[in-house]
Amino acid sequence: MKMARVPERNGQFELVNIEIPEPGPAQVRIKIHACGVCHSDSLTVMGAIGNAFPRAPGHEVAGEIDAVGSAVTAWNVGDRVGVGWFGGCDFTCEACRRGDFISCANGQVPGIAYDGGYAEYMVAPAEALARIPDSLPYVDAAPLLCAGITTFNALRESVARPGDAVAILGVGGLGHLGIQYAAKMGFEVVAIARGQEKGPLAKGLGAHHYIDSTASGVAEELTKLGGVKVVLATVTAADAMTAALGGLKPRGQLVVVGASADPMKVPPAALIFGSTAVQGHASGTSQDSEDTLRFSALTGVRPTIETLPLASAQAAYDRMMSGKARFRMVLTMG
Amino acid sequence: MKMARVPERNGQFELVNIEIPEPGPAQVRIKIHACGVCHSDSLTVMGAIGNAFPRAPGHEVAGEIDAVGSAVTAWNVGDRVGVGWFGGCDFTCEACRRGDFISCANGQVPGIAYDGGYAEYMVAPAEALARIPDSLPYVDAAPLLCAGITTFNALRESVARPGDAVAILGVGGLGHLGIQYAAKMGFEVVAIARGQEKGPLAKGLGAHHYIDSTASGVAEELTKLGGVKVVLATVTAADAMTAALGGLKPRGQLVVVGASADPMKVPPAALIFGSTAVQGHASGTSQDSEDTLRFSALTGVRPTIETLPLASAQAAYDRMMSGKARFRMVLTMG
Repeated sequence: MKMARVPERNGQFELVNIEIPEPGPAQVRIKIHACGVCHSDSLTVMGAIGNAFPRAPGHEVAGEIDAVGSAVTAWNVGDRVGVGWFGGCDFTCEACRRGDFISCANGQVPGIAYDGGYAEYMVAPAEALARIPDSLPYVDAAPLLCAGITTFNALRESVARPGDAVAILGVGGLGHLGIQYAAKMGFEVVAIARGQEKGPLAKGLGAHHYIDSTASGVAEELTKLGGVKVVLATVTAADAMTAALGGLKPRGQLVVVGASADPMKVPPAALIFGSTAVQGHASGTSQDSEDTLRFSALTGVRPTIETLPLASAQAAYDRMMSGKARFRMVLTMG
Repeated sequence: MKMARVPERNGQFELVNIEIPEPGPAQVRIKIHACGVCHSDSLTVMGAIGNAFPRAPGHEVAGEIDAVGSAVTAWNVGDRVGVGWFGGCDFTCEACRRGDFISCANGQVPGIAYDGGYAEYMVAPAEALARIPDSLPYVDAAPLLCAGITTFNALRESVARPGDAVAILGVGGLGHLGIQYAAKMGFEVVAIARGQEKGPLAKGLGAHHYIDSTASGVAEELTKLGGVKVVLATVTAADAMTAALGGLKPRGQLVVVGASADPMKVPPAALIFGSTAVQGHASGTSQDSEDTLRFSALTGVRPTIETLPLASAQAAYDRMMSGKARFRMVLTMG
């Protein structure tokens, strides 16, 4: 099979032919149809969280089950499945024993712990699988398995309830999905981005309001709208996150899903007087992914994508890193 | 009556004789027996949040009702009552209409919006009153109306549940109460302070563990203990707060009640992977104060205090500001 992998730290992708892997007893093998290219794939390229080399990135994997390990009971050959950031857990640590699998002390991430979806086939543990609804094409399902679940799950687990005002900070790979999810969940949606040009786009995706953060103070503009219960920060600029804090209603949350390199500067007084919080949010489990996919199929939420064949993995990765993709790059196989 | 008030911004206290005030229709007059001296009184002295001058600080007021306005139905002359940071609300803003009175957009603070408890009498709106149990002396009740409620309410509203490990960062005016409350709520209590000398004190107050933050990394020490569900930050040093973040369990909270001058530097990745939060917490309403006082009477939680007469307000304030008080200064009247 073909695989696009990184031979060494910060190396260029190489397209190799290797043997199709066999699933272990608790694993399945997936014939991959599409794999999203995510900014977190740069962690694999840089070896930033400890992966070995060579390694194929890819944690937005959509395909069909092609072979099933002897101990797998809940999945069958031909099932349409996806694998996201949650690539397996140990079931024995404290978090797992509490059912909090995404917080597993030994959690596995596809493309880090084992080769991910930049390939024609991959093997994954059964607990990492999410069912893809028949109505959802593989190329659309792929980005929903990281960019989608991250925004969907963060919004539904936030303190916001239908009818509340919610701001989506950033209109990019995550933000363009966050706006759609927020609108379909019944929130009053405020989109925030740099410049005027993303305003019509954000409104087309379901935003009720648009704030150009280069033209006016974000906190002031949010306050003029009456404040928001939640700001979902999909950007990686720490200062942009902090600038939105003052627009929260009492007991609101700034939910952070994008890891900036710089620390956020948070004045405690900004949190104390309104009893507000800066809340981190890890993506979610395979069940959360499945919920994301079902909600998307139900409500018509779709990613805006650009596709390239697996052989163009380097070009797809470079375009993603350049920030020019509108909005998610997806590799297609065969 | 005698009052110790600040004549002008950053002025020295002056002891004056003024007429005993009359309560308005919705107010009561309190004959004050004791008033705590809180670090937030410096906001009054500095005029930092907009108070007029001259102004008497004091939002840890304990006394008995001496006169009742014509519209007050729930309180009677002779009732033992306290007034804390929550000194009244407008009942008409969005927060109030939701029952979230401490988040009132026009909330009043004694010593800021009107003269506080550095006096023999004060008037306060009826909604600001908390009942003091008969078994609780006025001098003990006073500090519980700010330092007490702040730690009690933050702990009971946190994500920690009995049996969970909780860290109290700082063993001072707030921290020595936080340790006691945490122990009486059934938490496994980790006290954290600078130096070794506060260890035996913290253990005497109910802490099960003590960490000297000058001797070892706080996050590492907390992790050795298995991590904590909540860190209650009672200190005002932003870097000390941030240093504890890595000791949180998944879905844990760093609860911030002390407003540092410097911003906290929070790396988003430290919040994302464990889905943890930096949670601000405003003190609480008069009902929360009443709950604090009842819990303290029930479980034997008491502040460690030093008392001085009202005429020594300047000395009491200076000693509080010096950080030398062990642990709360209380003014006594008459």
